[in-house]
Amino acid sequence: MKQLGIALLGMGRIGRLHGENLAFNVPQARLVIAADAYLNDAMKEWADSVGVNCTNDVIAAINHPDVDAVFICTSTAAHAELIKAAAAAGKHIFCEKPIHTDLDQIKEAIADAENAGVKLQVGFVRRFDHNHKAVHDTVASGVLGKPHVVKVCSRDPDHQSMDYIKTSGGIFLDMTIHDFDMVRYLSCGEVTEVCAYGAVCSDAPYGDYDDIDTAIIMLKFDNGALGVIDNSRASHYGYDQRTEVQCDKGCVRVDNDLENTAQIASAEGVSVAKPTWFFLERYNNAFIAEARAFCDSVLKDTPVLVNGKDGLMPVAIAMAAAKSYRENRSVLLSEILG
Amino acid sequence: MKQLGIALLGMGRIGRLHGENLAFNVPQARLVIAADAYLNDAMKEWADSVGVNCTNDVIAAINHPDVDAVFICTSTAAHAELIKAAAAAGKHIFCEKPIHTDLDQIKEAIADAENAGVKLQVGFVRRFDHNHKAVHDTVASGVLGKPHVVKVCSRDPDHQSMDYIKTSGGIFLDMTIHDFDMVRYLSCGEVTEVCAYGAVCSDAPYGDYDDIDTAIIMLKFDNGALGVIDNSRASHYGYDQRTEVQCDKGCVRVDNDLENTAQIASAEGVSVAKPTWFFLERYNNAFIAEARAFCDSVLKDTPVLVNGKDGLMPVAIAMAAAKSYRENRSVLLSEILG
Amino acid sequence: MKQLGIALLGMGRIGRLHGENLAFNVPQARLVIAADAYLNDAMKEWADSVGVNCTNDVIAAINHPDVDAVFICTSTAAHAELIKAAAAAGKHIFCEKPIHTDLDQIKEAIADAENAGVKLQVGFVRRFDHNHKAVHDTVASGVLGKPHVVKVCSRDPDHQSMDYIKTSGGIFLDMTIHDFDMVRYLSCGEVTEVCAYGAVCSDAPYGDYDDIDTAIIMLKFDNGALGVIDNSRASHYGYDQRTEVQCDKGCVRVDNDLENTAQIASAEGVSVAKPTWFFLERYNNAFIAEARAFCDSVLKDTPVLVNGKDGLMPVAIAMAAAKSYRENRSVLLSEILG
Amino acid sequence: MKQLGIALLGMGRIGRLHGENLAFNVPQARLVIAADAYLNDAMKEWADSVGVNCTNDVIAAINHPDVDAVFICTSTAAHAELIKAAAAAGKHIFCEKPIHTDLDQIKEAIADAENAGVKLQVGFVRRFDHNHKAVHDTVASGVLGKPHVVKVCSRDPDHQSMDYIKTSGGIFLDMTIHDFDMVRYLSCGEVTEVCAYGAVCSDAPYGDYDDIDTAIIMLKFDNGALGVIDNSRASHYGYDQRTEVQCDKGCVRVDNDLENTAQIASAEGVSVAKPTWFFLERYNNAFIAEARAFCDSVLKDTPVLVNGKDGLMPVAIAMAAAKSYRENRSVLLSEILG
Repeated sequence: MKQLGIALLGMGRIGRLHGENLAFNVPQARLVIAADAYLNDAMKEWADSVGVNCTNDVIAAINHPDVDAVFICTSTAAHAELIKAAAAAGKHIFCEKPIHTDLDQIKEAIADAENAGVKLQVGFVRRFDHNHKAVHDTVASGVLGKPHVVKVCSRDPDHQSMDYIKTSGGIFLDMTIHDFDMVRYLSCGEVTEVCAYGAVCSDAPYGDYDDIDTAIIMLKFDNGALGVIDNSRASHYGYDQRTEVQCDKGCVRVDNDLENTAQIASAEGVSVAKPTWFFLERYNNAFIAEARAFCDSVLKDTPVLVNGKDGLMPVAIAMAAAKSYRENRSVLLSEILG
Repeated sequence: MKQLGIALLGMGRIGRLHGENLAFNVPQARLVIAADAYLNDAMKEWADSVGVNCTNDVIAAINHPDVDAVFICTSTAAHAELIKAAAAAGKHIFCEKPIHTDLDQIKEAIADAENAGVKLQVGFVRRFDHNHKAVHDTVASGVLGKPHVVKVCSRDPDHQSMDYIKTSGGIFLDMTIHDFDMVRYLSCGEVTEVCAYGAVCSDAPYGDYDDIDTAIIMLKFDNGALGVIDNSRASHYGYDQRTEVQCDKGCVRVDNDLENTAQIASAEGVSVAKPTWFFLERYNNAFIAEARAFCDSVLKDTPVLVNGKDGLMPVAIAMAAAKSYRENRSVLLSEILG
Repeated sequence: MKQLGIALLGMGRIGRLHGENLAFNVPQARLVIAADAYLNDAMKEWADSVGVNCTNDVIAAINHPDVDAVFICTSTAAHAELIKAAAAAGKHIFCEKPIHTDLDQIKEAIADAENAGVKLQVGFVRRFDHNHKAVHDTVASGVLGKPHVVKVCSRDPDHQSMDYIKTSGGIFLDMTIHDFDMVRYLSCGEVTEVCAYGAVCSDAPYGDYDDIDTAIIMLKFDNGALGVIDNSRASHYGYDQRTEVQCDKGCVRVDNDLENTAQIASAEGVSVAKPTWFFLERYNNAFIAEARAFCDSVLKDTPVLVNGKDGLMPVAIAMAAAKSYRENRSVLLSEILG
Repeated sequence: MKQLGIALLGMGRIGRLHGENLAFNVPQARLVIAADAYLNDAMKEWADSVGVNCTNDVIAAINHPDVDAVFICTSTAAHAELIKAAAAAGKHIFCEKPIHTDLDQIKEAIADAENAGVKLQVGFVRRFDHNHKAVHDTVASGVLGKPHVVKVCSRDPDHQSMDYIKTSGGIFLDMTIHDFDMVRYLSCGEVTEVCAYGAVCSDAPYGDYDDIDTAIIMLKFDNGALGVIDNSRASHYGYDQRTEVQCDKGCVRVDNDLENTAQIASAEGVSVAKPTWFFLERYNNAFIAEARAFCDSVLKDTPVLVNGKDGLMPVAIAMAAAKSYRENRSVLLSEILG
């Protein structure tokens, strides 16, 4: 097999993003079919533009004989169930994060994929970003010795709609979850304890939905390192995505990608470009690298770079952080994972 | 017409680059056919991989009924002649630079396209780079007043093969030509006079081919600005591509794109990433933007962003620079253009 | 009075630093006498080199008729007592930090200075640094709206001697105290609660002295902002001193001062200069600005820029942080301040 | 002798700058007397503030028995004559640039100092700047191989008064002279040929005084390198002082020192600090290092770091550049030096 036949499940924003990458930028992939239970005209038009057939029968798409693997891009609620269905059909699985918001559901889905002998990769796309990867690779190389402090600053450019906030599961699960993945990736260790402070700092009505817009989370790792994440839902200047690891012998850190490298100097001052606006701009190439890596793992039968456990742990850490914030105390991961 | 039907003429390195962009990253384009007079198995395999038919009959490709426009990516010697053939067939034309190394040939080709009423865009891709465009747009906006000094630093990462150098036409025509385009673009003016210093600074045998590896060229512009370009054929650290315009009220300048934003600090020192290696990495997005802009110009019948004159002038300036270097004196453009 | 007559109390490292600045770089000051209870030959030689008389009678120096103000640079244990003595003599007071490690002693010393009507400025020198001041001034100007998140990264270049650690009072009191001052300065608010994680990450025997080398401290402020500090006793690459405040409408942050702006690029990579090594290099100009500001406050009878309360609060926050670390829980400042 | 006794000759702006450094920041120096033929009350007041006697008898100051060396800071016209007088008195000499605008006068002054066996250091202060020194040291170390291209960008923040321009000797002699010194310092070579373009780009009436405000100068060096300088009399954003040397194996370059490292990001954009305003801010520490180096050279009898030839050559290059600009042709240094 030279190319992997793929069924795209879910044609919302993130589904179309993956679909276009698979169609045009992943030579190892062939987009066989796109499915969405709520198929509408816009989706049909989109499918046409990328030259793929579409259907509202998601199960049929999974079982399509030319399909070797599925990309699960539906709403979160359906992820675990589709993993199980794909596993049952013997199809390899790329699943957007999070797998589920219930740990037992996640464990079951992972077990099903393992038992079926199919690959399962979870969509923590930042691991494929050139910047964060440079931090990870430096730490993992050991050139700086073992990690002491892991830092992630992660700010969205602007508030999401309150409709989204209403059902998002809260900042730790909808936003910080990516950062919880990052600290595991960058520390090369496991989180054992977390402690969170949170606040509504803006004028937006997060309080009405029992949510916050600003958070700081301290973490302890099993390798002795400490960590800290700071989050904001609205920077107003772009997608702020900086990571850093201080180690025994030194420190590696990355700053944001900017729109360009221009400096404009005059009597009024000196201006430089803003960070790229949001994840579509910043992680554009990372999404392509992520899809390529998944296809390579299947085609060459190598371990996926973001596995089931990598899908499970950030959810558990998010639960611990939420508990810490609610109870204003440090929370052990063992309280969550049992 | 929603999509432009395109014949790719020439399937060498630059042809395949354009072909892949047209196939996958330019929604406004449909790659109809790819032609190369020296069609070989590798080209056939490549054409297959992008899903386009191929032929060794370049004229037939031009005249293909589904073809609205051609991308001329052959060796330089054939450019002008293919422009004429495409113009005769009423097809719009994107042509890689330079159009020709003979000014009269260039003028004829431009005239043919004009007379046929077809668009002609020349492949000076750097105009579509996010960095240089930011410089141009700042100057063109007038916010800093009129330009005083235009600076371009342009260094290739490493020596080309001496086989290439043998027939390249010399540094001013094969390398600085892009920078001559840049200074016109960034100054929003026309070059009137140039003066060049050159040298062989490396150990490579450029002298055997009457060529040099290092050059500095001063320029005067019709808007009163001065300019300077410095070139090297081998930086060894990557593709160095910096531009700057000092104006009445201030200065705008851009630095290189780096591989990532990582800083690694230790007792040994602090290291950062290198510039992207060469034009494929640095101008990857610019090539896509260039092709999209051409298609848009045709589809919406708007002026192309790099026209025939923009194809002619850098060749004339290169000739003046070569003359200046040979005769060690300042040379007026009028000596070349008559 | 055009110049302030000053008695330097204490001729250790920090005393000599202030003494040289007062002698050569603070036009508003005249160094009248230098005193140290443990006067030795090196101190005498130093006093000679700056052209000032010296004595081992500290009280006599305070009471010298030409002395308008004292610079208290002795060991911490003597600070409060010398403040009281200077206040009793009606002399203005600059006192190195911390005033004392006992809150009641600090309050008494402050009260004595207030009752005597003399100025009391505490030596939190970072407030006079060009970088941190730019952050503060931006926040204080209100141009970015109110602060949401205050961040301080503060790392010493290398381990102190274990002799120092033995009696230093622990990381929160000997090192983070500067950062506790910084977050108050940068947030334009008061700390109300802290929560600290700490660890010994290096191989150094901090554990033998009940101390740590790595700490992260979260903070809450009375203006609704959150904060975080991360500390390390040994970066190995220099003095890492970065601060940042995210506000309603944007973010202001500063990076380190580097030894120079050189970039060296080659096939091996790109290197840049290291941060300046330690506080003597980084805060050199800040020490001068600090002394000038104190003299100006006295000469013009304006409020000092770092007052008694500014001396008290960081000690209280350090106590809260130490308690938080020991008890692994979030601690209210009111638990410390009563 | 532990300290060098110094007579300051000339108490204008640059004289007072050196005088304050000698009084307060050069431990190896003792300011014995300050002299100015046009002594006025402001000068007397200044001398008082630094604690030095003053006189209008310059020759008496040179011959003062406690004076070991002189700092010549008068108007340019008197430099050579005072060098001769100091040499005759056997006093070591620091002389501000340029020594004279007549090459024979310069040669005579240098010869007098040599014959008298006294040190002569010329005030090209930029050699003591941390940034340019880092470039020089990298080139001189040989780690990057031999130099190919030397670049200097040098822009003053704003126009000088036309009163100054009237008698300044023109841009090449009053401004570029520093850059001609820089290219010699950075290239570790000698200039053999120059070619200059110049223009009046601003609205200021430089034409009335046969002068220009914008210049580009190409250079050839005896070690095979090429060079280029670009100048502007008015950047409006500060003192732009960037240097760069591309070598066999890579490139070293320095950017400006900024007022601080703050970045302020908001929806409106991202602003950073401006370069330091002018030479007083930028080269403040370099002036101190320059004076210390001179004193060390005398006290330890080591060669000065900027000698008589270093004083002569930039004047000769400036003459060649002026000739090149006037005659619009490349000019050999041998045409000037004979």
